[in-house]
Amino acid sequence: MSRWTLPPDRIPSAWFNVVPHLPTPPQPPLHPGTREPVVPEDLAPLFPTALIEQEVSAEPWVDVPGEVLDILRLWRPTPLVRATRLEKALGTPARIYFKDESISPSGSHKTNTAVAQAFYNAREGTTRLTTETGAGQWGTALSFAAAQFDLDLKVYMVRASYGQKPYRRIAIETWGGEVVPSPVDEPDHPGSLGSAISDAVRDCVGRSDTHYALGSVLNHVLLHQTMIGLEAKEQLALAGERLPDVVIAPCGGGSNLGGIAFPFVPDSGVRLLAVEPLSCPTLTQGRYDYDFGDTAGLTPLMPMYTLGHDFVPPSIHAGGLRYHGDSPLVSSLVKDERMEAVAYPQGKVFEAAIQFARTEGKIPAPECGHAIAATIDEALAAKETGEEKVILFNYCGHGFLDLAAYDDYTNGRLDEIG
Amino acid sequence: MSRWTLPPDRIPSAWFNVVPHLPTPPQPPLHPGTREPVVPEDLAPLFPTALIEQEVSAEPWVDVPGEVLDILRLWRPTPLVRATRLEKALGTPARIYFKDESISPSGSHKTNTAVAQAFYNAREGTTRLTTETGAGQWGTALSFAAAQFDLDLKVYMVRASYGQKPYRRIAIETWGGEVVPSPVDEPDHPGSLGSAISDAVRDCVGRSDTHYALGSVLNHVLLHQTMIGLEAKEQLALAGERLPDVVIAPCGGGSNLGGIAFPFVPDSGVRLLAVEPLSCPTLTQGRYDYDFGDTAGLTPLMPMYTLGHDFVPPSIHAGGLRYHGDSPLVSSLVKDERMEAVAYPQGKVFEAAIQFARTEGKIPAPECGHAIAATIDEALAAKETGEEKVILFNYCGHGFLDLAAYDDYTNGRLDEIG
Repeated sequence: MSRWTLPPDRIPSAWFNVVPHLPTPPQPPLHPGTREPVVPEDLAPLFPTALIEQEVSAEPWVDVPGEVLDILRLWRPTPLVRATRLEKALGTPARIYFKDESISPSGSHKTNTAVAQAFYNAREGTTRLTTETGAGQWGTALSFAAAQFDLDLKVYMVRASYGQKPYRRIAIETWGGEVVPSPVDEPDHPGSLGSAISDAVRDCVGRSDTHYALGSVLNHVLLHQTMIGLEAKEQLALAGERLPDVVIAPCGGGSNLGGIAFPFVPDSGVRLLAVEPLSCPTLTQGRYDYDFGDTAGLTPLMPMYTLGHDFVPPSIHAGGLRYHGDSPLVSSLVKDERMEAVAYPQGKVFEAAIQFARTEGKIPAPECGHAIAATIDEALAAKETGEEKVILFNYCGHGFLDLAAYDDYTNGRLDEIG
Repeated sequence: MSRWTLPPDRIPSAWFNVVPHLPTPPQPPLHPGTREPVVPEDLAPLFPTALIEQEVSAEPWVDVPGEVLDILRLWRPTPLVRATRLEKALGTPARIYFKDESISPSGSHKTNTAVAQAFYNAREGTTRLTTETGAGQWGTALSFAAAQFDLDLKVYMVRASYGQKPYRRIAIETWGGEVVPSPVDEPDHPGSLGSAISDAVRDCVGRSDTHYALGSVLNHVLLHQTMIGLEAKEQLALAGERLPDVVIAPCGGGSNLGGIAFPFVPDSGVRLLAVEPLSCPTLTQGRYDYDFGDTAGLTPLMPMYTLGHDFVPPSIHAGGLRYHGDSPLVSSLVKDERMEAVAYPQGKVFEAAIQFARTEGKIPAPECGHAIAATIDEALAAKETGEEKVILFNYCGHGFLDLAAYDDYTNGRLDEIG
């Protein structure tokens, strides 16, 4: 057997909070004006109370509402798959497992937090959401979730992706969301996640019917993703494994990485590996400092690895990883050396993604290709040493909406810088 | 609970053959030259022996080889889902279930037979396959399967789809297949499944390393798809249902319809409903007669409903249903009134598909939208009568690679003829 499923009634009913397990207690975000620690009221124009509470919670577990579980059960628990065909192609003694988040309705892990955020907003009376999206994974996920709770949605899409990824835009519109390219006031600018966040926050502030939703970076977002790692732990046990030797995930803002890795933080023998694009090397080349989450300086200052909030990453295709900063929780773990980080160039990512497609049969999103590239290198290292290493990586999304990037790679049209 | 899964070791280990259950014994295909019944040797240039045996088999069950099961277990058994959100939106007392074939690696049911065909060809020493593809679902499925067995593949893609659906072409190439638009010798012709079959058969005949693979129509293809209905039966029992009142599936060549419906043929109380596009109304407006499977008259003559082998359907987007003929097994069931058929215009199909996306959260392939449109009508009829009808339909594929068609529909660019 090489695939482990769990029935819908075995979905975890509480999220795992990594905060009590951090080597260093988290530092607070600072108000962008006063530079004092933010208080919940500062965040009230943007988020519902429940999410603000989760943002600052130090409780080890947070209950998942039944209404959220009802929707997650449409596709969760997701399968854990052993990549035996890839192992064989590599000739490695390593056992490679991946958690298949691509089967969610919008095709990626982003749907996990989208449902929770839409639910809490609807429950507190919000009728409209704004958000940003880079590659479009988050925008599609939130559009799906907004439709489930009858919320209106406006998505500010990084202009480079808006042009390169029309299918993501159409998917958002099919679920009922509205999409505009960002930055809205600079039609020639390729955009960045930072500038799209500014647009979405500006649209939200001052409208009492509207809240803002973020698809990564924040503590509550990563909290919602921990379903991934919790299920994986249970499924690895079903597969007869104790713990993985290394857990690998791509990292842009940190949400799919946090989702699979955080439940393993207390297991000190488990290595945790973040994989980022060489063109946007936040964890590997950024500085650890307080910085804004957006370009315009509207968000609180967060303690994180950053390339500077005015950094404009090259318009590479793995757009979901093009963020100047990183989750404060992930940053804290990297700073304290509980988590490692590595950066990969784009060519190597697509090479790995195509090898995966031809062996395991699934075409990954380019973001996901980063984890696959690092997984292959870990497996080849195990081949050198003969070690029967257990590798777990997050298959965070499929690439059906990113096929133009594959075409560009195959035909030599990709910028090799990143 | 609204989703029923089965673990990978509960996949059916034998395919269901409908032939012993037909009201009228099947008539033989005829040789295109002599018009005499074909003998196995006539088919040997095209297909491996095992598939020829399955094509003429009257055994009630056919064992699935272990090597095929090993690959099918990557995604099978597929979930059975109750569409409670759609039921609620319609206000119907009907209980609507769908079998989710969209989670296969290539995103549709076609993968089921692709794996079996690639296996039998590889086992008998073939190293290269040719095939046709309309909308591209079959081409992607066979490219995935060919990669699993290290077979070379050349896909002749209906020219209209080649232009409208670049993502399908790229997916085929990503798995390693070669794609060319068809008809190869008429660069201005939009093409049809019939002409693409001619191209693929011509390429195959006379090359000893090459066989031909067909994605629908033939008995062995529909046999491989019966996994769908077999699993659905078991899962409906888990859901507490006896038998469905009606089983619904889209119908082009008949393979996803046969796959879900054939295991219910012996259950005389179960209605079986084929849904075809109004622009290519084979079952509802065609004649029952012997006709060629392709445009050029290279294939055997088959007893089926047909619009004539020189029929060129309009270039609508639901390309997978654009076939002049139909499966002889499906045709026989319709002729004997064991199966019903209905035709839907394209606008109504997309309207239904979008309602499904916004309620159930999944964006269907346009082909699949045909089944959804008919399901909605059955559910609304049940609302009129107050009947607690159980409806089962085949969610045969996702629409992530068909989003341009949604954009065209939403923006009024679709030809409303079909």
